[in-house]
Order: sequence, then C-alpha cells, then structure tokens
Amino acid sequence: MKEFGIALLGFGTVGAGVVEGLQRNGDLMAARLGARPVLRGIADVDLKRDRGVTVDPVLLTADAAALIDDPRVDIVVELIGGKGVARTFMRRALERGKSVVTANKALLAEHGAELFDLAAAHNAEIYFGASVGGGIPIIRSLREGLVANRIESLYGILNGTCNYILTRMEQEGLAFEDVLKDAQRQGYAEADPTLDVDGYDTAHKAVLLAWLAYGVRLPIAEVSIEGIRNLAAEDIRYGASLGYRIKLLAVLKRHGERIEVRVHPTMVPRTHMLASVSGVFNAVMVQGDLTGQTLYYGRGAGREPTASTVLGDVADLMKNMVAGSARRFRPDPTAAEPVSLLDRGEAQTRYYLRLALRDRPGSLACITAILGRHGISIASVLQQEVCADEYVPVLIVTHLSRDSECQAAMQEIAKLDVVSGDPVRIRIEE
Amino acid sequence: MKEFGIALLGFGTVGAGVVEGLQRNGDLMAARLGARPVLRGIADVDLKRDRGVTVDPVLLTADAAALIDDPRVDIVVELIGGKGVARTFMRRALERGKSVVTANKALLAEHGAELFDLAAAHNAEIYFGASVGGGIPIIRSLREGLVANRIESLYGILNGTCNYILTRMEQEGLAFEDVLKDAQRQGYAEADPTLDVDGYDTAHKAVLLAWLAYGVRLPIAEVSIEGIRNLAAEDIRYGASLGYRIKLLAVLKRHGERIEVRVHPTMVPRTHMLASVSGVFNAVMVQGDLTGQTLYYGRGAGREPTASTVLGDVADLMKNMVAGSARRFRPDPTAAEPVSLLDRGEAQTRYYLRLALRDRPGSLACITAILGRHGISIASVLQQEVCADEYVPVLIVTHLSRDSECQAAMQEIAKLDVVSGDPVRIRIEE
Repeated sequence: MKEFGIALLGFGTVGAGVVEGLQRNGDLMAARLGARPVLRGIADVDLKRDRGVTVDPVLLTADAAALIDDPRVDIVVELIGGKGVARTFMRRALERGKSVVTANKALLAEHGAELFDLAAAHNAEIYFGASVGGGIPIIRSLREGLVANRIESLYGILNGTCNYILTRMEQEGLAFEDVLKDAQRQGYAEADPTLDVDGYDTAHKAVLLAWLAYGVRLPIAEVSIEGIRNLAAEDIRYGASLGYRIKLLAVLKRHGERIEVRVHPTMVPRTHMLASVSGVFNAVMVQGDLTGQTLYYGRGAGREPTASTVLGDVADLMKNMVAGSARRFRPDPTAAEPVSLLDRGEAQTRYYLRLALRDRPGSLACITAILGRHGISIASVLQQEVCADEYVPVLIVTHLSRDSECQAAMQEIAKLDVVSGDPVRIRIEE
Repeated sequence: MKEFGIALLGFGTVGAGVVEGLQRNGDLMAARLGARPVLRGIADVDLKRDRGVTVDPVLLTADAAALIDDPRVDIVVELIGGKGVARTFMRRALERGKSVVTANKALLAEHGAELFDLAAAHNAEIYFGASVGGGIPIIRSLREGLVANRIESLYGILNGTCNYILTRMEQEGLAFEDVLKDAQRQGYAEADPTLDVDGYDTAHKAVLLAWLAYGVRLPIAEVSIEGIRNLAAEDIRYGASLGYRIKLLAVLKRHGERIEVRVHPTMVPRTHMLASVSGVFNAVMVQGDLTGQTLYYGRGAGREPTASTVLGDVADLMKNMVAGSARRFRPDPTAAEPVSLLDRGEAQTRYYLRLALRDRPGSLACITAILGRHGISIASVLQQEVCADEYVPVLIVTHLSRDSECQAAMQEIAKLDVVSGDPVRIRIEE
C-alpha cells in the first residue's frame, strides 16, 4: 500500500491528539483511503514532557527544519501556533513543495495572502480545516459543499472559552470575573485569556470565513470586535426575561456588494438553534442563496476533535497526491462580484439598551426624544419598579437602527443628568 | 477558462433547481473553481411543461442516450429517480467513462455495489451527496471530514415529509391522517406517501450511511423499519408530558464489531438538539470516536437545497478532472475491522409503553410481573385517573431492554383480560 510521510511540528495538546489518532485509527484510514499516513517525526522544543501518548523516541526531534527537509516527509502538520516560528517553518515546507495542514487561525488571518501565494508558487497546498470550529466541517463546507451558493449570512459561535463562560454566567447567575477564574482553574480558559474573551480569536476565524465566503482578505483591524469582558450578569438576566440568550457571535452578512464582518456579544432568541449551543461547543449557521439555512455543530476545540479535522485534511492531501497533485483549490477564491466592507456606522441591527434612569417625571421622555432624533424606533420599553432607589433600570429594545446613530444617541444619553453611568448596548440578531 | 460539459437527465423539481443554480451562480462557481460548468443538454420525457426556469430550447432533448454520448459531455447529472431508466442511463454514462452525480438513494441503496464497481472499472466516479439530507453535507462529512473517526453512532432525521407531519401533529394535536391529507394538498407529501411515511426512504438513506460509516452493504430487507403511519396523537401528547418529542429516526450504532441499523419513531428528550428540528428540516447527529458529537442541520429536500449539493458534487468532479482523474474515492470504503449486523432481537433501547388497562385491583401487578419475567426493568409508571371509563391509560418507561424480550412481553400483555387492544411501544433514545 502506498505510504505518505507526515511530519508533526508541535507536540502540544492537539499534536498529541494527532499522534494518538494515527495510532488508534491509522489502519482504518488506510482501509478507507487505500493509502497509509505514516508519522516520520515529531518536532518540539520540549522532548521530555509526558503527553499521555507513547511514541517511539526515534521519532522525536528538536530540529524541525531537518524534519521538514526529510525526503520521506510528504505532508507537514503545523501545530506550533502563533505567528513566529510557525510561519518560518510553514514557509520552509511550502518552499520545498511540501503541503501543510494547520490549525493556526492567527497566522493565516494575518499572513494568509503571503502563505497561500507561496503554496501556489511551489505547487503545494495549505489545508486549514481545524483553524475554525475544531471538529466542525465549516471550512470544508464553505469551500466545497456550498461552492454553488452565494453566502447571504453566517453566524458563528466560534470560541469555546467564551461560550463556556457565557453558559455558566447564565445558568449560575455569576459575574464574568468569577466564572473566568474558575474556568482558568479548570483549564477551560488560558492564564492570559485576552485572545479569547476579548474576541480576537473569534475575529481571526471571522477573517478566514469572510475570505472563503466572499473572497475578501480583511485586515483584522477592519473587523469590528467586542468581547465579553464587560458583560454584566444582570444583562444576561434581563435578556433572558425578554426571551434572549447572549452569545459571542461572529456575524458575516452580505448586502449586495457590501459585507459586514463583526464580532460581539449578541442577544439571540432562546428558541433559535444557536441559543441551545452551550458550554465548550461551537456552531455555525450559514445561509446560502440555494441551500437556505444550514447549521454545523460540534466541539470547537480540544485534543481529539481538532485532531480529527487535522487528519481529515491529511487524508484530503493524500487523495490529492494519489491523483497526481497536492493542489486542489485556487489560491484565492475570489468572488465573481467584487465585494467591499460596509462602513461600520452603516451596519443596522436591533439593540437592547439598558439605562439607569432617575425615577422622576419626564426622565423617560428625555430618552425617547433623543432616540427619536436619531431615527431610532423603539420596539419595547420595560421599566421595572425598584423600591428605595434613586435610579431604576430601564430596558429598551429597538427596531433596526444604524450603528452610527445608536452610538451618537448613547453618547447624548450618557451626558444626561437623569442617567447614571454609561448606558449598556447589546446587539440583537434574530 | 477550462469548461466542463454537464448533461442533465430529468427535468423535474431538482433538475430545474440545478438549471437555475447554474444560471444564477455559474459565474460565481467559475470564479471560485477556475473552471466553468456548462450545461450541454437536458433530457426528459416531457419537454413541454413549464418548470419556472427559462432554457434555450436547443438544450432540450428526449434522447437521453444521445446526450450521454455527446463528446462534449463530461459529467452526467442523474435526477430521474427510481430504479428503472435511471439505472440504465447511469450504467451507460459510467461505461463511457463519464462520471455521475445523483440524488437517487433508492437506486444506490439497492444497486450500489454494481454501479460503484462499474464506475471503478471505467475510471469514473459516482457522487451522491444529494441522496441523503438534501442540502446537509452528511455524505461529504462521513467520506471526508470524519475519515479518521470510528463512527460510534449516527442519528438522523432524514425525511422532511415525516418530520413535517410529526411537527404538525405535535403542535396542533392533530391525527396522522388529517395532517397527511393537508400535507398532500400543500405539496409536502406525495399522492402515494408510502415511501416516506412508512420509513422506506429513510431506510434507503440509512443503508447508504451505514455503507460510508461501517463499510457494509446492507440489503434493505435487513434494516428494521417502522414508519409513522400508526402513530397516535395521544402518544405524542403523553410523550410531551414525559419530556420527549417523537421523531422518525434512522439509528446507526456500533457495539464493537456489531452494528445496528434501524428506522423507527423515536422519543427524544425535548432538550436534545434533534428535538428542535422541526418542519421539513433534516438533521444528522454523528458521534465519532475522535471528534465527539457533531450535528449537521438544514433543508433535507426541495429544489434549491438539493440543487446546491448536486452542484457541489459537480464542482468536486471538476476539481478531480482538473487534477487529471475523475476518481477520488475507493470503490468500497471497507472498514479495517469487519462488522456485521446485530441480531434484531438483541438490540437494546429504553421503551415507552402505553396500555389500556382495566381499572381494577391487581391489573398493574399482572403487567409488572410479565415485564419482570422478561428482564424488563421499569423506570417509571404513570397511571392517570380517568372518570367513568372502564379502561385507563397506563404509561410505562423502561430501562434498557432487549427488543426480543420486549416483543415477547408485549405479546403476553396483549392477551391479558385486563388489557384492551394492542399495547403501544415506542423506542426512546437519549
């Protein structure tokens, strides 16, 4: 049986999952594919640590460059992460015409153009299914199954850490900081959680999805990003009373030749399938013009689900090479019509607003007057009676409103004497 | 730009969707693929009927064989359906080395071995993504994304007609026959609904899924099939009171080297994601040993969703041919370990049982004694007080029980004086 040599760069959590997956299911893959993936070596700076998987010591090396250059290596699996040596080694592999499988969303989101061009120049290919959604086939679906569709919209819960925190905040009524600390203790959140909770990880994934869906390469700086760090437990509670759950969503939408790409905490109706995605699970809902609504759900991270997708990509490359060439995709899936980013201020959503309003006649009238001047139409207002408190919480749900107008209105409202503190503003997607 | 010629056989609902998809998004596909799909002809016995799509009359022909033989045709899209001429034409295409895209689950489930062998012999390929789940990428996921996984289980809502009927029975408290008639009037059910409501369509799909998941070719006669025709509105209501919704599921499960493949109405917990799949939507939940739980959801039928998947398969074939060969998969995805079908009687599930029991002392004791003798352990019993009725409904939920024992117990129970009519038995899957 034909064999293909695999080099593994990075022997961390996912790397150990890939090794274990090959050990456990390598025969099954060979039977299904008619060719066998064979691990030729594992490169890591730390060759001592126990990864919970037994490997022949002869496979371990600290010299990634030599492993990449090994003529018995056909496919390089990059699981180092980050934008430093991962980029160097990926370039090295591609320059030698060796295809790469990676889960590195940050690297591809920020240096994708350079790397995909390099791959094309050397008749190699980059597969990156595990970079978005872990075990969920969202990259594959956008590139292959949905290739005949114009993508109307895409809503993704793409960060397991955030979804875990939001689920516990909701279910246990806890504050963000308390859940974060506990998540860190349990290993569901990193010691430095910034990439996750501030939305950057989701934004990196959104950039990759926008590239596949719309053929645009967005600099990450152009994505509107808001994380979950400032989310108050009371807004989760109030949202629930209005029939919503709060999820950190990547939202991609197409309006003719303009697209929106944003990442923010979002209220979604409790009956929506995305609302029932809890804990570390991820899900992506895609609306294609032919296929209509589709949803993909599964574990968005973790050793084995990510390894499953990495090995699925390895299998694809093996099939490509059996057919005679590693390459199968165009370097840039440019859309037939050029699309460009919608100006951030022009984006329209419904909003949930919460204000602390002084409990005296005319207060609410000041608010509604400002909203009205900015063309923001109110769908519902809920002012709850609070005893013995100068300020009462007022919840306002708006109809579709322009982002710029809503921001301007919030600034005016924040300056009012009858309002205490900054108003809270959370987008709603139905 | 390189062009690939497409022959469309069958200008029905999905065929018209394919034509419209090519007209609307052909440029987009060409931009994404770097090659263009070009419709060379449409064969149908009825060339007059209006399909709601405008086509150049020169494309229309009643001579499918000549169209298949046209040297400008590279890919044959078979959307005739059924096991008659569809088989003849598919064989003709494959014998000429032309690859086929089809949505024909019945043909592949019953004659797949012959057809896939023929494809292999002529260096052609059969793509059949649209044969299961319409716009849902379940075939693709099993063949590609999950290729490194042992499939532990698969639960599918695979028939939109049944799910539509069940959803309306539940939401409106209606009887099966009433909803069926209305569904027929509205075009959601065929004039002869047997294939759908009696579970055969779902069983054909289960056979294809079992082939991909386990490498086995099951004759349809070996699948345990039960449809929704005899489902009573009251069991849907009682199920709801116990926290369950009833769905027609294809269930595939692996127990070591034994697999189960069955189709039946199933009670699923209301909080389970499959329970929230309503109307004509389909969904498949797959448990892989590496990837864990994944779910795929979307429109399981209909003109445009099915056309989307057909065109996705056409795109795959085009990419294969650009790379030099139409073939990409092994003729038979045989599993590394041989698996065989679990004896039907040995299957274990939990059961919901409903009996009409005479309201007199000792009645329930007779029942529980019979269940006990068959090793069936009771999880809960609900006997509701009914005024002025000789027989009262008794609901029993069992723990895991063997099918053969449960059947035997039901037969004994049916013979009891204290029981009126046949007991109802519905499987529960958590």
